[in-house]
Amino acid sequence: MTAPLFDTICFVGIGHINSSLARAVRQHKLARRLTTLEISDKARATALELGVVDEAFTDAAQAIPAADLVVVGTPVGAIEAVGQAIGPHLKPGAIVTDVGSVKLAVVRDLAPHIPDGVHFVPGHPIAGTEFSGPESGLADLFKGRWHILTPPPATDAQATDRVAALWRAVGAQVEIMEPAHHDKVLAITSHLPHLIAYTIVGTASDLEEHLAQEVIKFSASGFRDFTRIAASDPIMWRDIFLNNRESVLEVIQRFTEDLTALQRAIRWGEGEALEDRFTKTRAIRRAIIDAKQA
Amino acid sequence: MTAPLFDTICFVGIGHINSSLARAVRQHKLARRLTTLEISDKARATALELGVVDEAFTDAAQAIPAADLVVVGTPVGAIEAVGQAIGPHLKPGAIVTDVGSVKLAVVRDLAPHIPDGVHFVPGHPIAGTEFSGPESGLADLFKGRWHILTPPPATDAQATDRVAALWRAVGAQVEIMEPAHHDKVLAITSHLPHLIAYTIVGTASDLEEHLAQEVIKFSASGFRDFTRIAASDPIMWRDIFLNNRESVLEVIQRFTEDLTALQRAIRWGEGEALEDRFTKTRAIRRAIIDAKQA
Repeated sequence: MTAPLFDTICFVGIGHINSSLARAVRQHKLARRLTTLEISDKARATALELGVVDEAFTDAAQAIPAADLVVVGTPVGAIEAVGQAIGPHLKPGAIVTDVGSVKLAVVRDLAPHIPDGVHFVPGHPIAGTEFSGPESGLADLFKGRWHILTPPPATDAQATDRVAALWRAVGAQVEIMEPAHHDKVLAITSHLPHLIAYTIVGTASDLEEHLAQEVIKFSASGFRDFTRIAASDPIMWRDIFLNNRESVLEVIQRFTEDLTALQRAIRWGEGEALEDRFTKTRAIRRAIIDAKQA
Repeated sequence: MTAPLFDTICFVGIGHINSSLARAVRQHKLARRLTTLEISDKARATALELGVVDEAFTDAAQAIPAADLVVVGTPVGAIEAVGQAIGPHLKPGAIVTDVGSVKLAVVRDLAPHIPDGVHFVPGHPIAGTEFSGPESGLADLFKGRWHILTPPPATDAQATDRVAALWRAVGAQVEIMEPAHHDKVLAITSHLPHLIAYTIVGTASDLEEHLAQEVIKFSASGFRDFTRIAASDPIMWRDIFLNNRESVLEVIQRFTEDLTALQRAIRWGEGEALEDRFTKTRAIRRAIIDAKQA
């Protein structure tokens, strides 16, 4: 029998991603003991009831000292407070990682609270659904998906390797990246699409009452997909936009220019310009299918 | 044994929607004989090979005189030419319907070519995938979906009933609507989402080469859905935008205002405004799930 990768893992926040990881860790026997530090009474009760973790705490002083690995899975806006709470209780040699959707802000807010002798390896799994809470976790959520690690230059290579090993063990492919680069890539692949989906569903909900009712009734392909995306956790996404401001504003700007060009083509009946643009986007879809991320 | 609803149905254009309808008609034995009038050699060959239709024609003079029901399923931009081609060959008492995604323009372009004694019942099934061609048809595509009919005021009620009966028989729910109203509702539920998806995927494909590669590699939920939508048929969508210009431009304007408001909230760090907006859109998703259109 192989030894588990970690003795005790403490999940700070036991929402969709962390409860998925906990289930996967359990399934693959990657740790001996799983705990959570979680402020929501309901989430703690649910996580214990479903056996997602062995023990649940509200006090960092009780939860953190025993942890060999701490996985921070709160909304990004709460991460500085998490750092303040857990920092003093981290044991020497422990590793801290996270699953936040932005990385520059996490490094900025969490790194200052990590004491010497504790390793900090920030990360972000490119996986998730529109559901939230510990009951929504899926053990195979990370299978075949990417996990991006953004360790600061001075990070202990062994610590990075151990975190990478954990994610590989739950089925992910691991990629190392600069935090700033991560935030740029995700601004376009994830943050902008969510903002657009929130916008379009909001636009529809502001229509005159009878029209809004029909939008729901005749919700077609396209709009339906957008409403699914726009059902994602509001707090999590508020924090993502506030904490990846520069990159998001930059891609909104590009997007708006491109939309304005198409709008103009529609107004002036420029069929060829529309057709060219629509043909080009098909190639991207094929590339994604080829990359097995469809 | 009940008599089929129609003797001969001729599908003008045998793409995704018409080949789905042909399969469903066949499965439910709703017509004795199915034919297609189709200019593409490849599509004719495929449709015959797969047994989607019994006979395939390139000449309206051969295809149309025998048809009791003609279902026009070409891109909307081709509909006027279709009208000119089929008009002289329609037999008295025949019914012409269509499956075009816009309705005002179809009425404008097709109605003038329908001779007296032939019934014209425009329609639009709120169904479809991003695939195209006769090989992509699905017999159960319309099951549980809406089919909107927009008959002009003077339309023979019996003709409308027969077309409605056909769609109900393949599993759809039928709703009668004014063409202008249809075009407004669909502009927001379908046309704008497609335009946005085309735009965002285009924006991504214009990024510097190395970044575009990573966008494909780390294509997350959100962007992946958009690329699927943006893989839809370019000609079909070019024609939709050119033929629902006013309604589409109106909803782009609303959308852009709403996006600008969110952009401003991000720039100025207005977390509460973002959270409010993102919470509101969850309700729309719930309503769509309740309406069983999710």
